[in-house]
Amino acid sequence: MSKFKIIDVKRSIFEDNDADAARLREELKEENTFLLNLMSSPGAGKTTTLKRTIALLKDDLKIGVMEADIDSDVDAQTISETGVRTIQIHTGGMCHLDADMTRQGIREFGTKDLDLVVLENVGNLVCPAEFDTGSTKNVMILSVPEGDDKPLKYPLMFSVSDVVLINKCDTLSVFDDFDKQRVKERILAVNPDAVVIFISAKTGEGFEEWIEWLKSSINKYQNSKEIE
Amino acid sequence: MSKFKIIDVKRSIFEDNDADAARLREELKEENTFLLNLMSSPGAGKTTTLKRTIALLKDDLKIGVMEADIDSDVDAQTISETGVRTIQIHTGGMCHLDADMTRQGIREFGTKDLDLVVLENVGNLVCPAEFDTGSTKNVMILSVPEGDDKPLKYPLMFSVSDVVLINKCDTLSVFDDFDKQRVKERILAVNPDAVVIFISAKTGEGFEEWIEWLKSSINKYQNSKEIE
Repeated sequence: MSKFKIIDVKRSIFEDNDADAARLREELKEENTFLLNLMSSPGAGKTTTLKRTIALLKDDLKIGVMEADIDSDVDAQTISETGVRTIQIHTGGMCHLDADMTRQGIREFGTKDLDLVVLENVGNLVCPAEFDTGSTKNVMILSVPEGDDKPLKYPLMFSVSDVVLINKCDTLSVFDDFDKQRVKERILAVNPDAVVIFISAKTGEGFEEWIEWLKSSINKYQNSKEIE
Repeated sequence: MSKFKIIDVKRSIFEDNDADAARLREELKEENTFLLNLMSSPGAGKTTTLKRTIALLKDDLKIGVMEADIDSDVDAQTISETGVRTIQIHTGGMCHLDADMTRQGIREFGTKDLDLVVLENVGNLVCPAEFDTGSTKNVMILSVPEGDDKPLKYPLMFSVSDVVLINKCDTLSVFDDFDKQRVKERILAVNPDAVVIFISAKTGEGFEEWIEWLKSSINKYQNSKEIE
């Protein structure tokens, strides 16, 4: 028997996504629940990164994960094995989640007792960047094999992300045309405020810095009366 | 000075994409121009695969390339250096090309004297699968670092592709959880007619089989009176 619930979300009939996002953000602030929207290309390592992140945080924080996928339950299966509360959201073919779809998931999930909810968005560098989900922070993953030119080609995704995790750094010797300095410069050119962290979800490289950022962001959020 | 033209295509105001696709397919058949729609995730290796393909075919066939990107000209720059006619299509933020957008590109480009036109679609495993571009054949690339579970998660893309090229096979020793047999079974489960070819655009592995498929498909198309 599956350890997680599967829900099908419907596309919002309302057109004002920004208003929906602001409303969800207020509701989450009332619960003091931090919503992290995790985005990337297919196969950049969202689930593996999340698994290691959960292992490092679950003794300190109450965590839930909402897995958004077009169809399958592969990732929800993997995440539910970590022991945290997991829900699978099926987008019905949609290439992204908007704020109302996220809210449907949040309401069904029940997040009052959670400190951190991670929304693993659909693997896509284009559409998810266009829709504010109502998240507290946006984090994206770019993996080394994808190449260091991606900030030039998908600038919107990089510009809406508070943190860019550069994953699969254990493969830099194989992908030797990937230049760490160059990718960082290209990211900062489209988003000067982005925090860029080089990691490997496989070996754990860089996770100290990432966990430190996440803990301090959640702490700041929970101890502030304002929504950023 | 740039060696290629840049055009901005507009989203079609007509709703019947399938009719637009059928019309474009007829027009291309009158010119006997084979249109290959090349799709993949960002960073799977479309441009590198195309560069090697062009080098192996350009003495035998008249080739043109239409590069679709949201914003940049990085790939058109790379491809124009191979000496084939190249055009950059800007989608204006759109995550895919539909048949009318493709037709705008084809008309602007001028394809009467060409045997093969390759449309390098926007890097995205979701949206491009939903829109028939009017192409003669669809080819997708899945790269080894993305993982062998992708046919489970993006089934539509695999089901609309005539050929699936599994790229970056030179990195199989690093990504040792990628199982060639398993990925092939998963692809054939969603699309029993798919031709699956294992390649490396870096080393040239598998290109004999890929070029053989492409040459024989173009030959068959040009010598047939019917549209498949």
